[in-house]
Amino acid sequence: MKAPAAVDLRIDARWVIPVEPDVLLPHHSLIVDRGRIVAMAPTAEVDSNFRAREQVTLSTHAVLPGLVNAHTHAAMTLLRGIADDTPLQPWLEQHIWPREQRFLSPQFVHDGTLLAAAEMLRSGITCCADQYFFPDAATRAYGQSGIRALIGLPVLDFPTPYAADCDGYLQAGLAARDAWKHERKFAFALAPHAPYTVSDASWEKIVVYARQLDLPIQTHLQETRDELERSRASIGMTPLARLDRLGVTGPAFIAVHAVHLIDSDIDLLATQSCQVVHCPASNLKLASGVAPVTRLKARGINVALGSDGAASNNRLDILSEARLASLIAKMATADAAALPASVALRMATLDGAAALGFDREIGSLAPGKQADAVAVDLGSFEQLPCYDPVSQLLHVAGREQVSDVWIAGERLVAQGALVRLDTSELAALARLWQDRLQ
Amino acid sequence: MKAPAAVDLRIDARWVIPVEPDVLLPHHSLIVDRGRIVAMAPTAEVDSNFRAREQVTLSTHAVLPGLVNAHTHAAMTLLRGIADDTPLQPWLEQHIWPREQRFLSPQFVHDGTLLAAAEMLRSGITCCADQYFFPDAATRAYGQSGIRALIGLPVLDFPTPYAADCDGYLQAGLAARDAWKHERKFAFALAPHAPYTVSDASWEKIVVYARQLDLPIQTHLQETRDELERSRASIGMTPLARLDRLGVTGPAFIAVHAVHLIDSDIDLLATQSCQVVHCPASNLKLASGVAPVTRLKARGINVALGSDGAASNNRLDILSEARLASLIAKMATADAAALPASVALRMATLDGAAALGFDREIGSLAPGKQADAVAVDLGSFEQLPCYDPVSQLLHVAGREQVSDVWIAGERLVAQGALVRLDTSELAALARLWQDRLQ
Repeated sequence: MKAPAAVDLRIDARWVIPVEPDVLLPHHSLIVDRGRIVAMAPTAEVDSNFRAREQVTLSTHAVLPGLVNAHTHAAMTLLRGIADDTPLQPWLEQHIWPREQRFLSPQFVHDGTLLAAAEMLRSGITCCADQYFFPDAATRAYGQSGIRALIGLPVLDFPTPYAADCDGYLQAGLAARDAWKHERKFAFALAPHAPYTVSDASWEKIVVYARQLDLPIQTHLQETRDELERSRASIGMTPLARLDRLGVTGPAFIAVHAVHLIDSDIDLLATQSCQVVHCPASNLKLASGVAPVTRLKARGINVALGSDGAASNNRLDILSEARLASLIAKMATADAAALPASVALRMATLDGAAALGFDREIGSLAPGKQADAVAVDLGSFEQLPCYDPVSQLLHVAGREQVSDVWIAGERLVAQGALVRLDTSELAALARLWQDRLQ
Repeated sequence: MKAPAAVDLRIDARWVIPVEPDVLLPHHSLIVDRGRIVAMAPTAEVDSNFRAREQVTLSTHAVLPGLVNAHTHAAMTLLRGIADDTPLQPWLEQHIWPREQRFLSPQFVHDGTLLAAAEMLRSGITCCADQYFFPDAATRAYGQSGIRALIGLPVLDFPTPYAADCDGYLQAGLAARDAWKHERKFAFALAPHAPYTVSDASWEKIVVYARQLDLPIQTHLQETRDELERSRASIGMTPLARLDRLGVTGPAFIAVHAVHLIDSDIDLLATQSCQVVHCPASNLKLASGVAPVTRLKARGINVALGSDGAASNNRLDILSEARLASLIAKMATADAAALPASVALRMATLDGAAALGFDREIGSLAPGKQADAVAVDLGSFEQLPCYDPVSQLLHVAGREQVSDVWIAGERLVAQGALVRLDTSELAALARLWQDRLQ
């Protein structure tokens, strides 16, 4: 008989939900060694095969892959709720942009990103895609927090305190990438703001860099009807068609929002295997509309979920985005069976990982993958009865039920508490910025 | 100089939000005596005017009126999530009704209602309108929990384990009312299930009883397009027009859902000063549609919020309903300024109280009213920065931030914990029923 293998960690769970395949594993354990999943086995069989240095018993919990927030502007946490109930253009022009012009700095970005990362961790998010200024400062904050991230390197054609023009943005962004590219939790994307704020010449440069450096491109696409209609009126094609002509589209093109699409846009997203990030709460709150998620998925297009920034949502909470995505898909299609719980959960995990190009490493629980996992306690009376744990996760649980979070095997949330970061220091930091920004 | 008056309780809050008037009172205290609010005053001025036997200091909290859940089927908590992602008719016919026929009993109703009441209390709900079978058993559970309730006395034209026919339902319901009508936390309503399940002859009897006994009438109205269209096809008028001809409408008529309304329905609701209860999550989840809330409100119709039962929602959580109501109103009107935070909060409190006929006693914080109040902690780092506490309540806070709940001056939730009920006993009760129903 073989001696049990020594491993770092076993997590004994009431249920393990690997996401891929779409099964529910009752009374299973996740076995982790050197940051990776080495096995998933019935808890009763673990003792004979593994001897773990650490054992965590979660008798009323579901353990699932870490949630992926495929679109946020993390540092905007400092602007959380600063001008709620305001339409997109005045919201940007009168409230957000003026404050950014005045207050934007590496310190702003670092502190806002640290707050966001802490909030995401406590919400069960183990990986995010960020898009904001001073990505070097953001990456530093992500490093402190322990969260995984695809860091967007912003590009605009107008000046901000971060850079003056397209070349300036690219230079600063690529310098940030050079400084951090060997850290294995980070990857980088080029993140031009939107088709309407970036010229053809700039897009062409972006495409060159993206190809040379093998970087994905993420941008806000057709978030409002106005954006779509102006483009068609002025250049006779949709913003997406324009990007396609410029060579932007492809499997590493991440289209965020994609609310207002015409049929040919959907054809294009499908034939080019583009990635879409659906941000339901933000799209509702800014009255942008509802993205045609079920139509996109029916065409085989991968659709991830994003919270957007805390200034337009105002929670960085992918569990609630998944629920909302399911609810509004049912409404939009008049079909109560649309976007069921298991599909929404997959969007919040594996499809998110795929959108960011991380699905070989994370997004599902499988031997060989990174040990990025989340435990959600389904045992409180508000979560009972529990006839279907996957459905319960989506339609009942809130982020307050997230008890534990591991990234690459490191426990970053333990019984609801942040391990690396101090919540009172975070609150003090937020209050400090509130006093400045008010 | 007058000596300070002796009172039962002072609650010193970072903010008091009375809802009516629509103001924010920073550093204020709520003064409570013999179950009623006697004053709201700046905290700095309290010592010279009041000497309280109990003092609760909430330095990072907003204190607001207790939330009102204007429509639920409390006992259906036992069926939480039993057939998610299923359309309304098969959901009722294949999943809900067969189980009700088999398992419905006073014990089922008592236990399910107790679980629901506990969940509502922890969600900051101090008053609900219930509509289910065995209202006597439900009222007993509400009595144990301490929550306030408008108890619906159900009427159907088909038999259930509770009653055989219209007369049987009415008899049983009115007996329950007679048994409990002197308990000041309870009021009763006649609750015919829906126009399509109750005949004209039964509606006529219901109207007679409602007038004689001064009882409101609550019913599910025009929840689905199908209901509206079948009625127009078969009797040439909408269900609401039919009820109006039968004498049902008026200020004490509570129309639940009201999703599919034609213009003349809206005219009728306005001219008859009817009450509407909007159940956004349930309407989305069952793919029923989106009620025209902003149009109703523009006509001066009072619109409250309901969670519906936990089988179709699946959380009894009016704070999240208020957020969802605001989000989908913005979407439906393509106006990000639609249903702003303060309006949604009023729907969740005072408008709910008004819909149930309770607004002289509860729904806002004002001297003379019952001390039904809720404290929400806005101090954790996830709630910061906080530029506008009302907006933060709606767009950021979750029910997990509800720290304390008072009803008629009695503290029923203290620092997040239920005072009268034991959470592990509640969980055990839910598990017991899960085993039976599975």
